[in-house]
Amino acid sequence: MQDKLTLMIPGPTPVPETVLQAMARHPIGHRSGDFQKIVRRTTEQLQWLHQTKGHVLVLTGSGTAAMEAAIVNTLSRGDRVLCGDNGKFGERWVKVAKAYGLNVEVIQAEWGQPLDPEAFRAALEADTAKEIRGVILTHSETSTGVINDLQAIAGHVKAHGTALTIADCVTSLGACDVPMDAWGVDVVGSGSQKGYMMPPGLSFVAMGERAWTAYERSDLPKFYLDLGKYRKAADDDSNPFTPAINLYFALEAALGMMQKEGLEAIFARHDRHRRATQAAMKAIGLPLYAAEGHGSPAITAVAPEGIDAEALRKQVKERFDILLAGGQDHLKGKVFRIGHLGFVCDRDVLTAVAAIEATLQGLGLAKAPIGAGVAAAAVELAA
Amino acid sequence: MQDKLTLMIPGPTPVPETVLQAMARHPIGHRSGDFQKIVRRTTEQLQWLHQTKGHVLVLTGSGTAAMEAAIVNTLSRGDRVLCGDNGKFGERWVKVAKAYGLNVEVIQAEWGQPLDPEAFRAALEADTAKEIRGVILTHSETSTGVINDLQAIAGHVKAHGTALTIADCVTSLGACDVPMDAWGVDVVGSGSQKGYMMPPGLSFVAMGERAWTAYERSDLPKFYLDLGKYRKAADDDSNPFTPAINLYFALEAALGMMQKEGLEAIFARHDRHRRATQAAMKAIGLPLYAAEGHGSPAITAVAPEGIDAEALRKQVKERFDILLAGGQDHLKGKVFRIGHLGFVCDRDVLTAVAAIEATLQGLGLAKAPIGAGVAAAAVELAA
Repeated sequence: MQDKLTLMIPGPTPVPETVLQAMARHPIGHRSGDFQKIVRRTTEQLQWLHQTKGHVLVLTGSGTAAMEAAIVNTLSRGDRVLCGDNGKFGERWVKVAKAYGLNVEVIQAEWGQPLDPEAFRAALEADTAKEIRGVILTHSETSTGVINDLQAIAGHVKAHGTALTIADCVTSLGACDVPMDAWGVDVVGSGSQKGYMMPPGLSFVAMGERAWTAYERSDLPKFYLDLGKYRKAADDDSNPFTPAINLYFALEAALGMMQKEGLEAIFARHDRHRRATQAAMKAIGLPLYAAEGHGSPAITAVAPEGIDAEALRKQVKERFDILLAGGQDHLKGKVFRIGHLGFVCDRDVLTAVAAIEATLQGLGLAKAPIGAGVAAAAVELAA
Repeated sequence: MQDKLTLMIPGPTPVPETVLQAMARHPIGHRSGDFQKIVRRTTEQLQWLHQTKGHVLVLTGSGTAAMEAAIVNTLSRGDRVLCGDNGKFGERWVKVAKAYGLNVEVIQAEWGQPLDPEAFRAALEADTAKEIRGVILTHSETSTGVINDLQAIAGHVKAHGTALTIADCVTSLGACDVPMDAWGVDVVGSGSQKGYMMPPGLSFVAMGERAWTAYERSDLPKFYLDLGKYRKAADDDSNPFTPAINLYFALEAALGMMQKEGLEAIFARHDRHRRATQAAMKAIGLPLYAAEGHGSPAITAVAPEGIDAEALRKQVKERFDILLAGGQDHLKGKVFRIGHLGFVCDRDVLTAVAAIEATLQGLGLAKAPIGAGVAAAAVELAA
């Protein structure tokens, strides 16, 4: 049915009408006083969201552009870095770091398991020569639905004294607490089509003071992603290159809605949806992919043993027009993922659970009486 | 007056309602069959616009991102390149090339003058060792309103045999004829907020076969701008990173409108607006900044001797809500620029001329009877 699609994937996430309408305004000049006002306002909003007093810079690009910018602006050729890798995005930052000739040591965990903060502590403590310049990791690993303990790892990096913490918070920012300054995270990257409740196209790099000191030393080649240019422009409420003006309109509107809801309420909502989704999947006999206690507030990965996850996902789309995410790489067909990130309300979670139950029933694959999932979700949603 | 702004700058250019409305649709999944259809369709449309059979890749980013991608995907560290520089954008590509450690030889012309194709011919012919790997130049130099002779220069590059022509066609594509394959231009970069009649946020890199051969050899570090990843994804009607989905909706709509109008009609319209604007400025005694016969089809730069160009521009904005562009860098206050690029009709040109005349009159600075500019423009618009 045309226009009935509901997105329950980890990005793009659903977008409020208010934001879509803001985006549909005629563009204005990006060197005008009116646009400067928008940059000033959104900068304050972004600092609020990141809980930081530092610069939060806006790029036209995807989350990958933001993370590449984080890396190429704070590190130099041959620098030793630790990369956390427990999923597709962890893997990606290893590739980016290697593409720029960094000396990469990978700290791995199995997909579905969280990164072990102790492994970072050990590696950092062993580095008495203080050669490690950066620790790159993904906070919420979208491919597996695992949340990593960024706070603990950033604490170990701080104790090291020289290295920076560079965090992919693409699916954690705006979903759970990421108090950048309080935790001492030096660089945070994120993207608009996630907790921001916006279409894709903008990405964000927040840089703390230590990151700017590292910037001065960084020798990796860059131009479009040169954050020094963005900082200089930002200090004049501007952008060094023509930005995606209409997405800025959307950004101002979306962050305004988030401020109205409040950080605490946003985090509570995501936590509620995580709990409801997890409880529902357990109640209907579908095992969670992420290790117990480490599920992401943004996305729940489900590994329905003995069931073709791709076939289930397609049926849910076909019958109920709800788009779930599939498994990536070797998880294709083994895992499906329910996004509960951004502009998602209790009704959406209940609906997704009900649709999955009805689909399993229709396929003759239900392991529990239909309604068990909805019942379990309802309990958590009311808690 | 709210919402009455008319853009007559070289980007962002005015956007049709059809395109704005397309952009305001709810996002769909970028890994869905529905999105693949859009990628397939827009790819064909882009090939039509570029008059090429090769790949035209879509980046989320500004025109600078596209040009940086053009450079970092076809060249290697230490490569000798010629850079044409006769304005702000020529200057910028010199900076990008140097940021990546290329061995840059600048072929300069004064601002307002076109690049001399003979200077390129001479440098290329002198290079009997065939060391020159790339010739980077700007087709329409937005800062000065000069169009460079891309066809002639690309011809000399072709005769050289080894070097590639890498052209910034940001304000020429969709404004005048750029038959990429016929002229043998190897790489063409462009941006959405120009002839495309779209908001900013997408940029485009068209790569010919020789450019892909050079890609295999290129050793410059890249990840987000790695065009090999975009080619691989494009062959599956996809995008390697989450693209600006809503801008893709806009792209499909805008290119559909352009196809309906037809390339010949689009080029004739821009030529008519160039002629009308030039004739009007001459008729009211305001000298053109670009050398006679080398004016861009996208933008006319005016150097109103003895008049503060910035004050004039501000009055036109204040009284008539028409945004003209100012002079950049050392031209600030000396030059104003009238954009006639993209979604601009005869009425817009006539209006801009009339507003400039009325403003001059109001400031007591008119050098010709009011109406002389409109009369001259009207003749060209009817021709």
